[in-house]
Amino acid sequence: MKKNILITGSVALDNIKTPFGEVKEVLGGSATYAAFAASLFSPVKIISIVGSDFPDTYLQNFRDRDIDISGLKVSPGQTFRWTGLYRDNMNEAQTLSVCPENLKDTSMDIPASCKECDYLFLANTDPDIQLEILQNVVNPEIVILDTMNLWIKNKPDRIKKLLDRVDIMVINETESRMFTGRINLVSAGKEISGMGPGTVIIKKGEHGALLFHGGEIFLVPAYPLETVKDPTGAGDSFAGGLIGYLASCRKLDAGAVRKAAVTGTAVASFAVEDFSTKRLESISRVEVESRIEKIKEMTRF
Amino acid sequence: MKKNILITGSVALDNIKTPFGEVKEVLGGSATYAAFAASLFSPVKIISIVGSDFPDTYLQNFRDRDIDISGLKVSPGQTFRWTGLYRDNMNEAQTLSVCPENLKDTSMDIPASCKECDYLFLANTDPDIQLEILQNVVNPEIVILDTMNLWIKNKPDRIKKLLDRVDIMVINETESRMFTGRINLVSAGKEISGMGPGTVIIKKGEHGALLFHGGEIFLVPAYPLETVKDPTGAGDSFAGGLIGYLASCRKLDAGAVRKAAVTGTAVASFAVEDFSTKRLESISRVEVESRIEKIKEMTRF
Repeated sequence: MKKNILITGSVALDNIKTPFGEVKEVLGGSATYAAFAASLFSPVKIISIVGSDFPDTYLQNFRDRDIDISGLKVSPGQTFRWTGLYRDNMNEAQTLSVCPENLKDTSMDIPASCKECDYLFLANTDPDIQLEILQNVVNPEIVILDTMNLWIKNKPDRIKKLLDRVDIMVINETESRMFTGRINLVSAGKEISGMGPGTVIIKKGEHGALLFHGGEIFLVPAYPLETVKDPTGAGDSFAGGLIGYLASCRKLDAGAVRKAAVTGTAVASFAVEDFSTKRLESISRVEVESRIEKIKEMTRF
Repeated sequence: MKKNILITGSVALDNIKTPFGEVKEVLGGSATYAAFAASLFSPVKIISIVGSDFPDTYLQNFRDRDIDISGLKVSPGQTFRWTGLYRDNMNEAQTLSVCPENLKDTSMDIPASCKECDYLFLANTDPDIQLEILQNVVNPEIVILDTMNLWIKNKPDRIKKLLDRVDIMVINETESRMFTGRINLVSAGKEISGMGPGTVIIKKGEHGALLFHGGEIFLVPAYPLETVKDPTGAGDSFAGGLIGYLASCRKLDAGAVRKAAVTGTAVASFAVEDFSTKRLESISRVEVESRIEKIKEMTRF
């Protein structure tokens, strides 16, 4: 039986401009991308908050992918909005605005239906909220953590506390340097591994990732794309594909985490081919498998 | 029988500062690194110019690796000097000074002993000199070309003329974008392939490379290192290892170029572990093979 996955993080409305176009008020957020990606492989529930202005059609998009949104609280007020701009090589977004500017550290309500899960993905949000969720979910088998520069700067000790209890940490290149104070990514990865997680993945955007597991390194390739319309959510789609695959195969050995990382890469490569979750909404598992085969062919020597 | 390789480019004296140390007047130059790397696999001759101030001990370093320096002209005046600084992630050097500032486009004297070769590597220098050498070397079997931003800016047409006659083009990420006007590296690689070379390699520094050959892409991995003391010459060592391997196996099919690129990666990974050519002077082919095996293990899934 497939294991069920609980994903927490943001569900948002994005305004995005890239050299290839511009979209307004589209579906976004870390939990959204991760949930769409993971739902290709295993049953997914999300916990998050949106405002009363959140469009019904977007709620329907979740339901269309069989994502359980009983933990998505619709509260009075505005949905979180992010306005971002990508230039040139599109590896990094420039945040033009976030609204509301000061996200309140509101405690999340965890409905009873969400208190039990096998796999828990704490997508990027305030580490205090992540800790609270971790304390309220009953014995998740596997916990995956993501974070961002803001929390590394302001709450590094909370992240360290979390690391003691997570199985897989995903973090991007710049953040891993900031968090460990180490320039070298191999050193940074080893140092984070030493803080607890059995698997650490340092994401390098279009350059793939470094995966540290059991004292070994796996060089996670990136799928080379000619069409990258919108990189938003690539990292979350990667993590979603990763945990989705792990939950479906129910293993956590070196072979499984390597295949899971390549699966995440393949899913993320679809995500960036169009704006928002458009491409993720339409892909099939067969398409993902076919791209994994291509990656295998492109790394063979 | 191993094929012989002719390498043209610079032989220089470098002043280098990195977060891990500082060295002065050390052996450097594109032809130097490439020759040291290639000589691990096949007989190598170089064509270049140094000044009368060039230390005898450095000439001896070439001879110690059985590199034929009969084409290394010692002319009155100063050897070319480069002063460079690396900060932070060490992927790009900041050039502090070059001396003499205006390298004269002197014609190269090609001694009779160097007019015949099987493999010709035109390491980075003025494309007019590269064209002149290409015209004066008798029917090389395989020609490999490297260049840099300065020539892409000032002499793109000369590079295009060269491309019509080369088999393998190596170029770095930024230069490939500059040369083609394309942001996307896959598009850039395909466009350069269309200009002639059967194999195009876009180098991405610590992120590996993209290799285009026969309509397919090979994702060249980078060897993850904890100790990177001095990245100078990494690209030239990569190209040297590549051509050295190709000359030793005497093939140019997809399997050979892929293995050659991984060989180049392995050799370059040693080069950056110490300043100047120090580490290249001491490595053995067995050490390179062992690192290739590790790369295979780190990319397996």
